[in-house]
Amino acid sequence: MDKKLAVITGYGAGLGKALKERFEMEGYTVLGIARHGGDFEADLTDPDATDRVFAEITKHYGTPEIVIHNVAHLGRGQLESLTADDFEQTWKTTTLSAFNVAKSAIPAMAALHRGTVIFTGATASTKGGKGFSPFASAKFALRGLAQSLAREFQPNGIHIAHVILDGIIWSEVSLKRFPNLQIENALLPKDIAEVYLNLVKQPKSTWSHELDLRPQNEAF
Amino acid sequence: MDKKLAVITGYGAGLGKALKERFEMEGYTVLGIARHGGDFEADLTDPDATDRVFAEITKHYGTPEIVIHNVAHLGRGQLESLTADDFEQTWKTTTLSAFNVAKSAIPAMAALHRGTVIFTGATASTKGGKGFSPFASAKFALRGLAQSLAREFQPNGIHIAHVILDGIIWSEVSLKRFPNLQIENALLPKDIAEVYLNLVKQPKSTWSHELDLRPQNEAF
Amino acid sequence: MDKKLAVITGYGAGLGKALKERFEMEGYTVLGIARHGGDFEADLTDPDATDRVFAEITKHYGTPEIVIHNVAHLGRGQLESLTADDFEQTWKTTTLSAFNVAKSAIPAMAALHRGTVIFTGATASTKGGKGFSPFASAKFALRGLAQSLAREFQPNGIHIAHVILDGIIWSEVSLKRFPNLQIENALLPKDIAEVYLNLVKQPKSTWSHELDLRPQNEAF
Amino acid sequence: MDKKLAVITGYGAGLGKALKERFEMEGYTVLGIARHGGDFEADLTDPDATDRVFAEITKHYGTPEIVIHNVAHLGRGQLESLTADDFEQTWKTTTLSAFNVAKSAIPAMAALHRGTVIFTGATASTKGGKGFSPFASAKFALRGLAQSLAREFQPNGIHIAHVILDGIIWSEVSLKRFPNLQIENALLPKDIAEVYLNLVKQPKSTWSHELDLRPQNEAF
Repeated sequence: MDKKLAVITGYGAGLGKALKERFEMEGYTVLGIARHGGDFEADLTDPDATDRVFAEITKHYGTPEIVIHNVAHLGRGQLESLTADDFEQTWKTTTLSAFNVAKSAIPAMAALHRGTVIFTGATASTKGGKGFSPFASAKFALRGLAQSLAREFQPNGIHIAHVILDGIIWSEVSLKRFPNLQIENALLPKDIAEVYLNLVKQPKSTWSHELDLRPQNEAF
Repeated sequence: MDKKLAVITGYGAGLGKALKERFEMEGYTVLGIARHGGDFEADLTDPDATDRVFAEITKHYGTPEIVIHNVAHLGRGQLESLTADDFEQTWKTTTLSAFNVAKSAIPAMAALHRGTVIFTGATASTKGGKGFSPFASAKFALRGLAQSLAREFQPNGIHIAHVILDGIIWSEVSLKRFPNLQIENALLPKDIAEVYLNLVKQPKSTWSHELDLRPQNEAF
Repeated sequence: MDKKLAVITGYGAGLGKALKERFEMEGYTVLGIARHGGDFEADLTDPDATDRVFAEITKHYGTPEIVIHNVAHLGRGQLESLTADDFEQTWKTTTLSAFNVAKSAIPAMAALHRGTVIFTGATASTKGGKGFSPFASAKFALRGLAQSLAREFQPNGIHIAHVILDGIIWSEVSLKRFPNLQIENALLPKDIAEVYLNLVKQPKSTWSHELDLRPQNEAF
Repeated sequence: MDKKLAVITGYGAGLGKALKERFEMEGYTVLGIARHGGDFEADLTDPDATDRVFAEITKHYGTPEIVIHNVAHLGRGQLESLTADDFEQTWKTTTLSAFNVAKSAIPAMAALHRGTVIFTGATASTKGGKGFSPFASAKFALRGLAQSLAREFQPNGIHIAHVILDGIIWSEVSLKRFPNLQIENALLPKDIAEVYLNLVKQPKSTWSHELDLRPQNEAF
């Protein structure tokens, strides 16, 4: 329990793995939570399951210093092709999971008056594009949640940040979806991880709440 | 079926009634949908119920010219006092209902290449305040949905607008919550209704997607 | 002096003329100020000239009820092709003129606790595009000025609004610049004028500070 | 000429000095330009003087890798107390100087397809407060300029960032203005400098264009 703890939710092969490597290099114990394949498995859209996994983690590793929320579902499509269930599942995966994680993790961190929570946003966090109604709505919602939590917990010593990833993360998943994606047009997971680490290191005199990240070649 | 049809969802005693009066004065047939007490009763968080009520309306009155979404639940509280269910109910009432209404109403309007859909936002649509995490998250989500739908359906001839009500609506409900509310510090329902009517009247050369409304005495 | 007075700055053949016609139809005395060809001629980038023309107008017609600022210079170009003088002239025409008009007109209006001031923005008011650095910078500046003035004078009874014209105004000037412009892709001056009139008519319970306007066919 | 060059404009005792120390520690040659007291003296509101000082620097030290624009004048006051000259001087110091610096520095950097330019914003960059019309207008203008330049030069390999300092910098100047300022409520120059260094280090896969910085105790 000597090492500081970082918990990554939505732990997967792309950004999750890069975050784990970078924060471990920095001396953190890093635990990934995923539906399948993380250090801990949990369905974070379920508040009880979220509570249980954070209780389990805290019991063995103490209260997290860092929590990174990185869970999303890219629900999209023209309105006529979408169902209410598509819309709801996108929100549950992207936004409700963030609420559940916040609720399960932040109060214990606030009691210690320290810690950082980072929510991962997207292009759709500030722009609702054609055919992106589920994802944009969910990412806007995540941003509103992050802002409210920042205003609630910043006075308590918790740094809450929202990072807008305005581009495509370089990962196997992205390559399946966009087979022509070039590496120089993508956000590299290790570089995003460095930015997240810098956010965590920000002293109390200079906290960022929101920043954008995009590849050099990305138009905006 | 000669008169043009306006459908108001979230029809209640405050803004809903004023909208009905104003649009009727303008020659519209106005139908209010509410969980209890509207011209039609339906739970708009239920996609099937929403489909049914719009099918029923269309059968008897034709395809709406105007749909106003005005349903919201002001879920708020400090994080520790909130449950995932609070968060979800706020989103379902405020945002999922808007998706369901859009899905049930817009395709038929788009087939006719005409009509206006107005979503009612709030201060929390662009600012996530302390203690407002459910409501801000849901209102941000509604704004993202409205933007996406505007970009999807504007080329089809559907005008989609988002109105940010940055203040408290003068109503019995508001007076119960804020007994010291003065009328000169409140948004009057009849005045909001006039703005909504002006939005509906905007010709295709000048469509507003977003505007704010606040009482003169409201700081911002 | 019985009729209410509206003053339009940047009075020209396109929007200025349409505003004059619409407000005259509504019963206003409408005076256009332009460098050349208005009811009054003045260089509004010059504070003394601005003061003089407003003093002259007030002497003959009383204190304005409405002031519309509609002066702009579309300075643009790649950075290397621009001079500091280009940048400054764009700002002077677009922004300094607005300050001068505000300074010359608003105090007398504030003393009467009534009136409306509308500033005309553009796509570039919220998005700084490639090759638009002078114009975007000046229009951002105008927006900041309008916001500050709204917060300063709204409590005094002056309604201050900022309208984002996200498209090209249908006018002879536009047609010279964009010979292929189609009318259905343009903002019609008479329709913009109607929106400005609606802003002026907003009662104190429901003041808009900012709204956007774009043609149906405009992507955004 | 072996060491990489960073040029700081608006070099003063507070943030300027901290930036110099931090970037020197990182191995940069750091040159401060100020009206009085920098390594180079120049009035950056004058385009010719700006060109001359950058030509002089380039002759002796090569093309800068980093340019930080940090010049501002906090012009404020109620409208009636302000003159057009106040408004113009605030803009010239805050915004025109940034244009002049961009124009004198960026083309040579773009020819080498590398470098970072950082513009320092403020609370007033996105919110026009009562009594802040000159400063808000000028800082909005700076933000619009930064956005346009980012879109113009990012494809050329120049990283252009805008940092919103949402708080008061801890400095002698601030203490004179706000004698009761507590250090725990202020932005520490050395901490801001660290953020600027992190921006410079961002690889091309993950460039931030905009971020905010505020002290933990700052409400927002």
